[in-house]
Amino acid sequence: MNAPAITSLTVRVNYSETDQMGVVYHARHVVWLDMARTEHLRAAGMSYRDLENDGYRLAVGELAIRYARPARYDDLIRIRCWVQECRSRRVTFGYAIELAETGALLATARTAMMVLNTGMEPARLPDDVRRLLPETPDPVRLGL
Amino acid sequence: MNAPAITSLTVRVNYSETDQMGVVYHARHVVWLDMARTEHLRAAGMSYRDLENDGYRLAVGELAIRYARPARYDDLIRIRCWVQECRSRRVTFGYAIELAETGALLATARTAMMVLNTGMEPARLPDDVRRLLPETPDPVRLGL
Amino acid sequence: MNAPAITSLTVRVNYSETDQMGVVYHARHVVWLDMARTEHLRAAGMSYRDLENDGYRLAVGELAIRYARPARYDDLIRIRCWVQECRSRRVTFGYAIELAETGALLATARTAMMVLNTGMEPARLPDDVRRLLPETPDPVRLGL
Amino acid sequence: MNAPAITSLTVRVNYSETDQMGVVYHARHVVWLDMARTEHLRAAGMSYRDLENDGYRLAVGELAIRYARPARYDDLIRIRCWVQECRSRRVTFGYAIELAETGALLATARTAMMVLNTGMEPARLPDDVRRLLPETPDPVRLGL
Repeated sequence: MNAPAITSLTVRVNYSETDQMGVVYHARHVVWLDMARTEHLRAAGMSYRDLENDGYRLAVGELAIRYARPARYDDLIRIRCWVQECRSRRVTFGYAIELAETGALLATARTAMMVLNTGMEPARLPDDVRRLLPETPDPVRLGL
Repeated sequence: MNAPAITSLTVRVNYSETDQMGVVYHARHVVWLDMARTEHLRAAGMSYRDLENDGYRLAVGELAIRYARPARYDDLIRIRCWVQECRSRRVTFGYAIELAETGALLATARTAMMVLNTGMEPARLPDDVRRLLPETPDPVRLGL
Repeated sequence: MNAPAITSLTVRVNYSETDQMGVVYHARHVVWLDMARTEHLRAAGMSYRDLENDGYRLAVGELAIRYARPARYDDLIRIRCWVQECRSRRVTFGYAIELAETGALLATARTAMMVLNTGMEPARLPDDVRRLLPETPDPVRLGL
Repeated sequence: MNAPAITSLTVRVNYSETDQMGVVYHARHVVWLDMARTEHLRAAGMSYRDLENDGYRLAVGELAIRYARPARYDDLIRIRCWVQECRSRRVTFGYAIELAETGALLATARTAMMVLNTGMEPARLPDDVRRLLPETPDPVRLGL
């Protein structure tokens, strides 16, 4: 298995992401998770675009975020992403959102993705796709 | 013709719309225009949802906004909308964004919508739809 | 105590909120929660704008959403909001996102808000504000 | 003057940016312009964050976009940015939004930025900042 167990994506906070509290608005982190998940799939050898073209949808069934510190305008943010659990009908991803420069933890998150078909009905992920998504221990808990 | 020539929609500024300058981020006005246009179509007797189901798309071809004053968190904003020009392949809408309480003008805008089919190719708006979109003189220029 | 225990806000899904899956993008629900929370505070007798002007911030510390059914373009969405737990340093809100027409449950959510001062440091909510936020049993669990 | 006359930024379209028409929602381009402008300033030797810390604000006074072709999910988008006109109280930027892979033009745009102070009142850009923003002929008109 050559797919990286933990991938990371770096984004720079843009002005539209801030709010009048002077920090990144909390809904914006949800988009960063999506971007990181997409890059994780790409690094694993598939693109979500191809997966959609093959008739699959990964729809968020559950979302949980714990915010530790605010992100600020122009910060470089690193989002690390890994597979917590991979079942045929449901794939759960874990995430750590960090300040790229210092590694300071800004937030941790989890999204459970439901596998759907184009008719938005439950479906099963093909075995060859599941094999690209090996489960990985939580690096934040392990202190990595 | 009973369709209202000028319609108005009121929205309250929510926190996600602000930026760290303490005002509404300028891209947000673009969404307000869309919301006002949708309600204008509804008041004219059609819904954009139905129009899409009938195989039409109105895609923004040109967008222009002139910002006069900032909108702020929790402000009630009124967006007035009217048809500037209605051709079979292109409908241009005009907009005034105002503070609902005082009527102070915050921005004026214009969007030219291209009529497309489901294949995203140029199409012609049916005559019965065009009749629902009578052209209206710019109320801001007229001081209304 | 005359403040309503459960408040509700109705919003219409606009085009910007949809994604190419043909449903509302899942981060958008987070903004609806914010809007509903703001209206809950207003109905309770304070505005979040005033609370900020008084030197307080309610920053999201934890966010959890469980998505049951997709919301779609032009749907009327009702967000019900209540206080799950009100402590001096942390207020937890519960939410139910429903299709306004049928009452069908689309999502349930919870946000834990940390009370901060203007320097973004932990603060205590004044007792007179806490009294406006009585805890309410979860109406979804109660089948209300 | 070593500052690059035309800068370019590449972004990948994420899922949140799409709408149910299957293309990038048109308000999203406005954020890309902002991101490109920020990187232009950085390449010119200043950061907008520093500019704000020095007491200046560049607020969008006018925005115009002409959309030629849709951007789609997972596309790599290149935004080129240059200074059209630099006055002490107003700086106008030009932009070309292109498909990175083919160079196909997706949109052209222009934003006129008003120079403001922290009190949101008109201000003058310092001469040493103006010198970092030399005017550049429109590369799209020149066929570059």
